[in-house]
Amino acid sequence: MNVLAIGAHPDDIEINCGGTLLRYRDEGHQVFLALVTSGNIGSNLLPDRETIARTREAEQLAAARFYDAQVRFLRYDDEGLLDSAQARRDLLNAMRWADPDVIFTHFPGDNSTDHNVTGSLAGRVMLCLSGKNVPSDVPPIQKRPSLFFWDTPAGISFEPEAYVDITRAFERKLQAVSCHQSQLAWLSVLHPHALPERLRIQARFRGLQGGFEYAEGFRAFRLHGAMPDFSLLPLK
Amino acid sequence: MNVLAIGAHPDDIEINCGGTLLRYRDEGHQVFLALVTSGNIGSNLLPDRETIARTREAEQLAAARFYDAQVRFLRYDDEGLLDSAQARRDLLNAMRWADPDVIFTHFPGDNSTDHNVTGSLAGRVMLCLSGKNVPSDVPPIQKRPSLFFWDTPAGISFEPEAYVDITRAFERKLQAVSCHQSQLAWLSVLHPHALPERLRIQARFRGLQGGFEYAEGFRAFRLHGAMPDFSLLPLK
Amino acid sequence: MNVLAIGAHPDDIEINCGGTLLRYRDEGHQVFLALVTSGNIGSNLLPDRETIARTREAEQLAAARFYDAQVRFLRYDDEGLLDSAQARRDLLNAMRWADPDVIFTHFPGDNSTDHNVTGSLAGRVMLCLSGKNVPSDVPPIQKRPSLFFWDTPAGISFEPEAYVDITRAFERKLQAVSCHQSQLAWLSVLHPHALPERLRIQARFRGLQGGFEYAEGFRAFRLHGAMPDFSLLPLK
Amino acid sequence: MNVLAIGAHPDDIEINCGGTLLRYRDEGHQVFLALVTSGNIGSNLLPDRETIARTREAEQLAAARFYDAQVRFLRYDDEGLLDSAQARRDLLNAMRWADPDVIFTHFPGDNSTDHNVTGSLAGRVMLCLSGKNVPSDVPPIQKRPSLFFWDTPAGISFEPEAYVDITRAFERKLQAVSCHQSQLAWLSVLHPHALPERLRIQARFRGLQGGFEYAEGFRAFRLHGAMPDFSLLPLK
Amino acid sequence: MNVLAIGAHPDDIEINCGGTLLRYRDEGHQVFLALVTSGNIGSNLLPDRETIARTREAEQLAAARFYDAQVRFLRYDDEGLLDSAQARRDLLNAMRWADPDVIFTHFPGDNSTDHNVTGSLAGRVMLCLSGKNVPSDVPPIQKRPSLFFWDTPAGISFEPEAYVDITRAFERKLQAVSCHQSQLAWLSVLHPHALPERLRIQARFRGLQGGFEYAEGFRAFRLHGAMPDFSLLPLK
Amino acid sequence: MNVLAIGAHPDDIEINCGGTLLRYRDEGHQVFLALVTSGNIGSNLLPDRETIARTREAEQLAAARFYDAQVRFLRYDDEGLLDSAQARRDLLNAMRWADPDVIFTHFPGDNSTDHNVTGSLAGRVMLCLSGKNVPSDVPPIQKRPSLFFWDTPAGISFEPEAYVDITRAFERKLQAVSCHQSQLAWLSVLHPHALPERLRIQARFRGLQGGFEYAEGFRAFRLHGAMPDFSLLPLK
Repeated sequence: MNVLAIGAHPDDIEINCGGTLLRYRDEGHQVFLALVTSGNIGSNLLPDRETIARTREAEQLAAARFYDAQVRFLRYDDEGLLDSAQARRDLLNAMRWADPDVIFTHFPGDNSTDHNVTGSLAGRVMLCLSGKNVPSDVPPIQKRPSLFFWDTPAGISFEPEAYVDITRAFERKLQAVSCHQSQLAWLSVLHPHALPERLRIQARFRGLQGGFEYAEGFRAFRLHGAMPDFSLLPLK
Repeated sequence: MNVLAIGAHPDDIEINCGGTLLRYRDEGHQVFLALVTSGNIGSNLLPDRETIARTREAEQLAAARFYDAQVRFLRYDDEGLLDSAQARRDLLNAMRWADPDVIFTHFPGDNSTDHNVTGSLAGRVMLCLSGKNVPSDVPPIQKRPSLFFWDTPAGISFEPEAYVDITRAFERKLQAVSCHQSQLAWLSVLHPHALPERLRIQARFRGLQGGFEYAEGFRAFRLHGAMPDFSLLPLK
Repeated sequence: MNVLAIGAHPDDIEINCGGTLLRYRDEGHQVFLALVTSGNIGSNLLPDRETIARTREAEQLAAARFYDAQVRFLRYDDEGLLDSAQARRDLLNAMRWADPDVIFTHFPGDNSTDHNVTGSLAGRVMLCLSGKNVPSDVPPIQKRPSLFFWDTPAGISFEPEAYVDITRAFERKLQAVSCHQSQLAWLSVLHPHALPERLRIQARFRGLQGGFEYAEGFRAFRLHGAMPDFSLLPLK
Repeated sequence: MNVLAIGAHPDDIEINCGGTLLRYRDEGHQVFLALVTSGNIGSNLLPDRETIARTREAEQLAAARFYDAQVRFLRYDDEGLLDSAQARRDLLNAMRWADPDVIFTHFPGDNSTDHNVTGSLAGRVMLCLSGKNVPSDVPPIQKRPSLFFWDTPAGISFEPEAYVDITRAFERKLQAVSCHQSQLAWLSVLHPHALPERLRIQARFRGLQGGFEYAEGFRAFRLHGAMPDFSLLPLK
Repeated sequence: MNVLAIGAHPDDIEINCGGTLLRYRDEGHQVFLALVTSGNIGSNLLPDRETIARTREAEQLAAARFYDAQVRFLRYDDEGLLDSAQARRDLLNAMRWADPDVIFTHFPGDNSTDHNVTGSLAGRVMLCLSGKNVPSDVPPIQKRPSLFFWDTPAGISFEPEAYVDITRAFERKLQAVSCHQSQLAWLSVLHPHALPERLRIQARFRGLQGGFEYAEGFRAFRLHGAMPDFSLLPLK
Repeated sequence: MNVLAIGAHPDDIEINCGGTLLRYRDEGHQVFLALVTSGNIGSNLLPDRETIARTREAEQLAAARFYDAQVRFLRYDDEGLLDSAQARRDLLNAMRWADPDVIFTHFPGDNSTDHNVTGSLAGRVMLCLSGKNVPSDVPPIQKRPSLFFWDTPAGISFEPEAYVDITRAFERKLQAVSCHQSQLAWLSVLHPHALPERLRIQARFRGLQGGFEYAEGFRAFRLHGAMPDFSLLPLK
């Protein structure tokens, strides 16, 4: 099975579904990552946007090795993502490139701007995957994947429909997250909780809800012709 | 009374409010149709986008005869609709052209991309209809129409507020839908239910809810200065 | 696996999850039915409440044979169900009697009075199943079953979270329903749609949504200590 | 047409749908009032519960003359209303007594205790109106009335679905309210706004929303077999 | 200021608002506790209901010392709480006894049965506190307290409106919880997470959301005449 | 403290939070206003868009004097606001310019088009305020302000979370509104209620809900890293 995760910024994928991706990879599935932006404002410490982007892409590639994943960078500007023909086409390219059975991305109700635009864009192209007249560089695919939305930052306004047990994957998830060295430093400025601690709290809480030690929570996108199949999640 | 239906693609109008438009026409009202896209990716069988668009516009014109409707094509790209100044202006033009008492269009909560953009755009221009300084090619109108949203594909996440009895119009609705020959073939690839059967199921279900044999269901747009008048629906 | 369905009245079980129960039985699971009332006002044709109850219990037993199910009657008054210590105890008895892995019942948001009281009562005793100090005639059980709510009449205000394919079971479901002869006659007085036709419409509509020819739709009860496991549904 | 209003306490009917009842009466319809409690704790000034009840029933009868209404007192204890077999039977009796086409009562989402119990009870018996085996003193009726819920105190958590223009009836509504002399005094202790002023504010606000000078707002009860017909409201 | 916490069972208060009560007590306010049941089924280890109740009341009294609180036991049966005239009167007595400025209790949307009945009952008597004709053993009070609902077990379906920083109180909260020795053992049978660990996870998660190290989250009851004043919470 | 109000059009600020701004100013805080459009279609009486804009900016400057506020005009086209990189940058500039502790703007659920785009844009840039790599003309700020949404026109689909008492400020609010002379005339064409009367009704109604004579109601934006602090509102 092919599994695609679409993150707004390098580190979003590891933070929100790293454990689930590790579960898929452990079961022999192929993981693909698409990064909409390269997070080029995501530092007050690095000198300029280009350096930040270059640094973060390298960090993302390192993290991707934890799931033996292929990676595709769409290179939009951080905090600058907009709904546009080009963005839809690039998302469509990424989806066709991965030929996925399951797709993970941000929840459209997430109030972080790149997050909700990414989540909306993913939904917008779901019915185009097989359309031969929809312009993209990658040829149409025949699969009709399920689209799942991962948790919001600190779980604000997000009630999971399903929980994936990541107990055995959690420490590796933290290792994958720790590839994003540039983020560990400066995010501590923004938030009183260090990132790994934050992730532990959230995974423990979702685990508490779902009946596991550590878990990641998900909701599904629903549209006629693109209804979700929850049994594709590594629920057991 | 003037009745305007705004569809994202040729066939959306017949599928979602064809029965209601037939009721209006039977009562002597004038029907207008606006098509935001010409559905130019809506086939995997026809050779190219231009052919698809030409074919579908002809199909739409044929269907429009069932309500003696005038038709206006805005000719946006299928699955490519975006919120933009031009799109708003074109919607405004279409609304002013029809000088409507009632408007029908897609529900903004419909997860199909052109559907929700169309639904949102319609709401966006509602307060501009009479503004003489809002640029459009068609002069301002004085009416303050009610805007109703029709059902979603397969009724996902849609709870009607009102039901229109289309029992006596249903077979003619299917005939109008069957003008969209190009769609009947390839949509069966996407969905396990043939389109006419799908419409019968949905109309029977909405009828079951509303207390009729066949029905179409609607919700209303609400905004101070543009509140809905449900008594304009052909409810009896 | 043990599967328990709890209906407010004889016929509710067949109407709302007959197809799903047939699926379980076809897979070799053991089905149990509990009827909270015997529907003793459910006729304007039979002479008195006792006759109605006796007739309907016999009909229910006939229907139960379609799933080789054991049946338990709690014999509350139709349209008279109230939350009470006795009703909770009887529900608890019924649940312990079936020792279920999965439980199905009415949705607490169903506006039909016995339906929502039954649905609420089921949820109220979920945490008591294993408590040795909770008084009931049947000893505590160790299982922690999942509780699912079936559809509402005509699907009003009900959005399924999961769909069970009942295509191959649907005609047998109608046969099971037709055991409730006393209901087929007089319900046609209340509703413009005959019951079998009504069930066909609703199953076809839920099938349309879920991607099947015929389906039944369900939502889950969620409470810490009693979280649902959707994989117990016969989803494939 | 017969119109029934069911209030938890004397004054609730005048306060929440007095204007609408006046509209019905002006159009020649017959109005019926049922009072679930006689509001026997509704005073800190009158000496005892019996005196309060007697006083308030007299006030209610005086107010009823504004709509030439017949009145039925169920005489439950104020702030003591519970869901019970007796309460359901008494509600059913009241509904059958009025043989109504339209029923008005409190919204079940109203956080005032007698209000939400009254609203729930009304919904609970809706399907029993015609059942000959449902015990009540009044014989079954054949009508299938629409049930509407009126506004909450100060409109908290209430979004109307429909607005009735009470502009020409508003001053008479205030007069009807002023029959409840015992309430005008002591409620001013509880609230910083005098009751008539409070009603004026709320009616003006609902009017502002609905496009009238003064209005009352309503929501509908929805259940298969008891769906609302908004055209029965005096909307024009 | 007087602060009243109303728990369905001994331990609910410590679990859900122990930290907040410690904050109040640290600021010199007077804390009152009311226990609706004595949790008399809350053990599979103790021999009988009476022993369980006696044990748990003693545990509750020990815990109460952490806030120097007065305690009142209403002694209803565990998992047997029902809406009734007596239960309302006892709740009213408890509220008048504490003469509170702020009240805390369970959320009515909590699916645990005693929890939601307790939460609903509290709301039901809010408007009776000052009514001299509402029968109770304790005389009416003049205050109009704010009613806040605490979190659900594992935070299922609960989105806080406000967060109270309990960082400095958290370890003492755990000590207060650990007074409930009878619960620490057997709850570990029901849940994979030990109770103190569960509380740590939930407090850390609510802290993460609210911007603190440890927090408790709350929602408010809203009713005209009993609107909440969030500034009464120890927010700073 | 610095307080920033962001209005879609001249007059929106006075209409929706004029009273609250007066409260802040009375307490010695510094008020800043940003106007996204200059309302250049907001008249059917003035000759052209440029004249309207010039007129309305002058009116806004006059109104701003009531709070001794500094004003910044972004000069987008009225009813033409779109989510764009430029619009986000301009909003960000405005926010950094004011260096605010509290921000007020339109509710994203407001169906008026410029209103909801403005409200969404404000939320979109909240996490960029301190980012040194986010391009804007004004340097980054260190504050992490709270963002509050004001009421909708006529309060449609808006339930306040908090109410600000504007009783002593209301008449001055009306004076500030009356600076917008160009609007007082032509809006009476659109609405049956004159603007000052409309504002009085809405403020009285929100006051009724919140327990004041006149009030303005607000909801909060919630996002990890930008959570609201309600105690910054002038609640007392």
